[in-house]
Amino acid sequence: RVAQRTPGFTGADLKNLMNEAAILAARENKKEISLTDCFQAIEKVMLGPERKSFVLSMHEKKITAYHEAGHALVAHALPNTDPIQKISIISRGEAAGYTLKIPEKDRHFRSKEEFLEELAVLLAGYAAEKIIFGENKITTGASSDLREATRIARKLVTEYGMSKSLGPMTFGQKEELIFLGKEIGEQRDYSEEVAAKIDQEVLTFTTNAYQKALQTLESQKENLEKLSAELTEKETIEKEAFEALFGKKKALQE
Amino acid sequence: RVAQRTPGFTGADLKNLMNEAAILAARENKKEISLTDCFQAIEKVMLGPERKSFVLSMHEKKITAYHEAGHALVAHALPNTDPIQKISIISRGEAAGYTLKIPEKDRHFRSKEEFLEELAVLLAGYAAEKIIFGENKITTGASSDLREATRIARKLVTEYGMSKSLGPMTFGQKEELIFLGKEIGEQRDYSEEVAAKIDQEVLTFTTNAYQKALQTLESQKENLEKLSAELTEKETIEKEAFEALFGKKKALQE
Amino acid sequence: RVAQRTPGFTGADLKNLMNEAAILAARENKKEISLTDCFQAIEKVMLGPERKSFVLSMHEKKITAYHEAGHALVAHALPNTDPIQKISIISRGEAAGYTLKIPEKDRHFRSKEEFLEELAVLLAGYAAEKIIFGENKITTGASSDLREATRIARKLVTEYGMSKSLGPMTFGQKEELIFLGKEIGEQRDYSEEVAAKIDQEVLTFTTNAYQKALQTLESQKENLEKLSAELTEKETIEKEAFEALFGKKKALQE
Amino acid sequence: RVAQRTPGFTGADLKNLMNEAAILAARENKKEISLTDCFQAIEKVMLGPERKSFVLSMHEKKITAYHEAGHALVAHALPNTDPIQKISIISRGEAAGYTLKIPEKDRHFRSKEEFLEELAVLLAGYAAEKIIFGENKITTGASSDLREATRIARKLVTEYGMSKSLGPMTFGQKEELIFLGKEIGEQRDYSEEVAAKIDQEVLTFTTNAYQKALQTLESQKENLEKLSAELTEKETIEKEAFEALFGKKKALQE
Amino acid sequence: RVAQRTPGFTGADLKNLMNEAAILAARENKKEISLTDCFQAIEKVMLGPERKSFVLSMHEKKITAYHEAGHALVAHALPNTDPIQKISIISRGEAAGYTLKIPEKDRHFRSKEEFLEELAVLLAGYAAEKIIFGENKITTGASSDLREATRIARKLVTEYGMSKSLGPMTFGQKEELIFLGKEIGEQRDYSEEVAAKIDQEVLTFTTNAYQKALQTLESQKENLEKLSAELTEKETIEKEAFEALFGKKKALQE
Amino acid sequence: RVAQRTPGFTGADLKNLMNEAAILAARENKKEISLTDCFQAIEKVMLGPERKSFVLSMHEKKITAYHEAGHALVAHALPNTDPIQKISIISRGEAAGYTLKIPEKDRHFRSKEEFLEELAVLLAGYAAEKIIFGENKITTGASSDLREATRIARKLVTEYGMSKSLGPMTFGQKEELIFLGKEIGEQRDYSEEVAAKIDQEVLTFTTNAYQKALQTLESQKENLEKLSAELTEKETIEKEAFEALFGKKKALQE
Repeated sequence: RVAQRTPGFTGADLKNLMNEAAILAARENKKEISLTDCFQAIEKVMLGPERKSFVLSMHEKKITAYHEAGHALVAHALPNTDPIQKISIISRGEAAGYTLKIPEKDRHFRSKEEFLEELAVLLAGYAAEKIIFGENKITTGASSDLREATRIARKLVTEYGMSKSLGPMTFGQKEELIFLGKEIGEQRDYSEEVAAKIDQEVLTFTTNAYQKALQTLESQKENLEKLSAELTEKETIEKEAFEALFGKKKALQE
Repeated sequence: RVAQRTPGFTGADLKNLMNEAAILAARENKKEISLTDCFQAIEKVMLGPERKSFVLSMHEKKITAYHEAGHALVAHALPNTDPIQKISIISRGEAAGYTLKIPEKDRHFRSKEEFLEELAVLLAGYAAEKIIFGENKITTGASSDLREATRIARKLVTEYGMSKSLGPMTFGQKEELIFLGKEIGEQRDYSEEVAAKIDQEVLTFTTNAYQKALQTLESQKENLEKLSAELTEKETIEKEAFEALFGKKKALQE
Repeated sequence: RVAQRTPGFTGADLKNLMNEAAILAARENKKEISLTDCFQAIEKVMLGPERKSFVLSMHEKKITAYHEAGHALVAHALPNTDPIQKISIISRGEAAGYTLKIPEKDRHFRSKEEFLEELAVLLAGYAAEKIIFGENKITTGASSDLREATRIARKLVTEYGMSKSLGPMTFGQKEELIFLGKEIGEQRDYSEEVAAKIDQEVLTFTTNAYQKALQTLESQKENLEKLSAELTEKETIEKEAFEALFGKKKALQE
Repeated sequence: RVAQRTPGFTGADLKNLMNEAAILAARENKKEISLTDCFQAIEKVMLGPERKSFVLSMHEKKITAYHEAGHALVAHALPNTDPIQKISIISRGEAAGYTLKIPEKDRHFRSKEEFLEELAVLLAGYAAEKIIFGENKITTGASSDLREATRIARKLVTEYGMSKSLGPMTFGQKEELIFLGKEIGEQRDYSEEVAAKIDQEVLTFTTNAYQKALQTLESQKENLEKLSAELTEKETIEKEAFEALFGKKKALQE
Repeated sequence: RVAQRTPGFTGADLKNLMNEAAILAARENKKEISLTDCFQAIEKVMLGPERKSFVLSMHEKKITAYHEAGHALVAHALPNTDPIQKISIISRGEAAGYTLKIPEKDRHFRSKEEFLEELAVLLAGYAAEKIIFGENKITTGASSDLREATRIARKLVTEYGMSKSLGPMTFGQKEELIFLGKEIGEQRDYSEEVAAKIDQEVLTFTTNAYQKALQTLESQKENLEKLSAELTEKETIEKEAFEALFGKKKALQE
Repeated sequence: RVAQRTPGFTGADLKNLMNEAAILAARENKKEISLTDCFQAIEKVMLGPERKSFVLSMHEKKITAYHEAGHALVAHALPNTDPIQKISIISRGEAAGYTLKIPEKDRHFRSKEEFLEELAVLLAGYAAEKIIFGENKITTGASSDLREATRIARKLVTEYGMSKSLGPMTFGQKEELIFLGKEIGEQRDYSEEVAAKIDQEVLTFTTNAYQKALQTLESQKENLEKLSAELTEKETIEKEAFEALFGKKKALQE
């Protein structure tokens, strides 16, 4: 069951993980590492440590609950996304809350379809805030979701040839400063005309994904209310509790 | 009451604050740090030391009084801004005067609505000068307000997805010179066409905010005269005195 | 027969190759290096080591099989490409599978015709995925093919004078950071107008090549099914087995 | 009277000034520093040392006299500028001549109105050359005036929000190379479209100021002749002599 | 006769040359340096060492022969080019073959006319391939000719004022990194509009030169066949043999 | 008479000059420095040493003679240029020939009129080549004249406010790399639209100056022939000989 939650982990990652689990066990003076320790360690490694000092106000908790409920419900509704493992409004690292999805197996390719649904899931928190609080109350809380969605949509267009209107090509050259051992961005090797087309396509991908998220959530507003209420009360919802409320995710037939 | 005026302060900030308070107390040969020492220390830490040598002319005092009165009245009128703690035309750090607003609690998210009102408050000093002295007498005193308003309006559009016409995306990549440990600006990763749209949106946000500030102040020109006269005379107005004149700010229902 | 598979190898390359072969032989406690050792060494040197830990799912194997079958069938169909030596869906280096073509002799010039067919072969994996799984299921697996095709198409236009509409010229200056001993990209020495024309030509080359790949594969869909089924079962198909199925490649008359 | 000519001087500036005065006194074997020594020291500190070796031809003296007379007469005519202290065609530092205006008190804000008049004064030397010698005889002597006028007009538009058509915003980000401790210019963070609007506004400010200078000087051409003749003869005209000719500047009512 | 083949050589070049000749003589155990040693040394110094390991296929030899024959015939036909010294399809340095022209005297100026003919000679190899093998069989072999032709055509326009439509001006500033002792390209100091005009002129020069090369070779297709056949057989043709076939080049009247 | 030929020389320049003169005198075993030694030293310091090894062909001498005669005759014809001191077709430094004009006194300002004539003189060598040899025979010999003319015309527009259509402004900010102690060019601080206008004005200035040079020389073609014939024969013509042929330059009335 640890393996199931850690696809894509290398040997070094797993070693690091077990160290964290051992520390957690030792803190509680246990002589053996329990499964619970492992699960806690997994989250710590993946999301950063819990931040007890990061105390949200009641209103902020409510926003976060709707935001995470949005991510979770859209992910649950779309066929090609990974199943929900846990939803939480306890702050971890930089995030006020998080929705944990874990792929059921290692994956080496990603399809266009999967990316489009991932975009919808990423924008679902923003969409939930829009639906519940309205345009004018949208918060900065969605900022990193928007950044990630833009990054992915741009890659669809410039690296994966997934935009029909731009053709089977890639755009831009990676620029690396070898003496710093770091990629420092992309060198534009195309014209303004193509740059404008790329922007247009990226906008189309994100806008369509946002519409999908909006529609999905508008059609199940009751679920959104139910899940956010549950989250506000319990703060954390595990896979089993989630599936008890909304059913098991249908396995995808490939 | 110290805690109320220091939201967002870390432990180190608070320690720094108490040192300053202790120095102030010591200067006056007091054996205990009074609440007044603490309040003075808070302002020094937040705004820089008072500048006694920075002597404004009578006319400059008048300009500053109208300018700060503008900030204060617009902030008082708009529902989502923090309540006024103090208004002053005694120079501190770089500023000729200042209007101190302190949030009532720590905040982790900012909403679009709050930003739009913050823009109006930032441009209210400029608007007050315009109303009282006219277009041609506007001074360089508003320069840092304008810079801050532009910075915020740009973030609404490029980082927070708060512009309807540009879609749920972010624009630009942060560029960091790691060997200098400093972010050196933003790398443009979009076309001229999008750059022009961003500029247009930023302009719309600032212009709307400026109009709101102008309307707010024009509709209470008597208050503007009253508050600036009071400020010119007293130089500093504390929260209690301000509320005595203009009433208590209505608490916002979230 | 080693020489036949190693055109373009320098003395140092060959020495490196024999070392690898010797290591393979030594691992199996053989006192002599067999031809098989040499062949395995050639592939290791050219493509990187086999990656046993890189385990594809059943569905991913299927995608890879169609993808490689696409490369192989288009290469077999076009007159100016090198003959197929081996097709495999065993991961090597960064690639999930590979199709090995080895030129029959050292070549010092490449013709426009050869490049255009190479583009079609490069885009044939992407085309095969499109035909079998549809637009929405295209994967990231084609990303490096697209990058390579774009790089080549751009060189046709900017370095080899092979675009009729842009004339007998080259475009762009190589920029070298001598103190790093590395070329760091191309300095644009032309106008936006020319940049847009170059983009247009590159797009024309890649689009035409993609159409040729699509047509070739659509006209032999049965072969695509047959070869991918064979690959899924056997994982590796050598030249002889490939020719048994699809005939020997006709030698090109120069 | 020293204080009146040294507004904005810090303690260190004043100390430096007195050193210079002491040196001047010592050179003439005086035991006390006279007021004259102080005045000479002020000019040396503000404008650089006199350049006795920089010998102008008769014709160049004439050009310089008209040029400085232009600055002085426009400054005298406009209500918001500082009063003339001294006009000279003796070279100092880089300048062939100079017109010294000293503000009557320290100033912390500058108004749009003051800047517009400052622009007219800066361009008045250029305008005087144009009126007297004609378009084709304009010299390089106005180069630093033009540069300064452009710099100020650009700041009105990009830093002080003093352009109506561009809105209450700032444009451009200061770029600093911290390891050099030096600002290295401005990073453009706006589109070409906005850049063209900024240029248009800067041009409007400078052109209007130039027209104002031209009109002012054309309407008092006799004064221009009288003052330049006086300057050519005397080389230096002090405040008192200037006011004897053209009257005292009317104090501005704020 | 050595001097005739080495115009423009400095004393140091000549010393280097004689060293090479001495080495060649020594290799053959000769006690004296013969004229043949000198000639071989000249070619080695000018073109790099022969590359015996660079073995062209029969078809590649044929391509190279037509390519070099193209250069030679166009150079022979145009009045302002240097006379042919030697044509060879033995690889030297980076080139598969070469056509050696040696100016009859040192030259300090180059005329527009000479440059235009030089462009035609540079593009004649590419033109010959086009005529004989057709558009689709053009090879990468012409790449460095195209680069050199582009470089020269650009200099005509941007450095020598030889383009009528762009006027008696230069364009672009050399940028030098003094601490690297190397020029690192050209800084653009002109607008996009001018950049497009420069591109247009460069294209006109190269296209016209290419047309001249095409016409020259099409009108003497038999000579092209004859010379390439001779080259394929003999591999190297010296001046005397070339003149025996096509006559002596008419000396230019200046 | 030394002073007359060395306006603008500093004390250090003069000391350097006398050293050179002393060396020349010493080489000829003279005990005293003659006036001739001084004159030779002046030219060496201003133009670089004579280059005896730089041997021009007869035809190149002819080109150079017409080129220098063009400079000299246009300079003689235009009222605001300095009088001719010497014309020579003996190579010095980088130049094949030179025309030496020495201003009659130190000058601190330059007028627009003087610059326009200087442009015509600079382009007169190019114009002479065009008139005598025709468009197609123009040589690279004019390259540095064109570069200098472009540099000056650009300064008229961007630094001296001498272009009517661009207004009383400057354009571009000097960029300095202080740690290299070197200005590395100009930072563009204006829009593409303004850049195109600047280019247009620079083109107008150079084209008008070129037309003036062409007209001047076409109207005195006989003088051009006479002076170039004289130069070809004598190689150097001193002021007195020049004035004997074409008269003394009329002194300019200022």
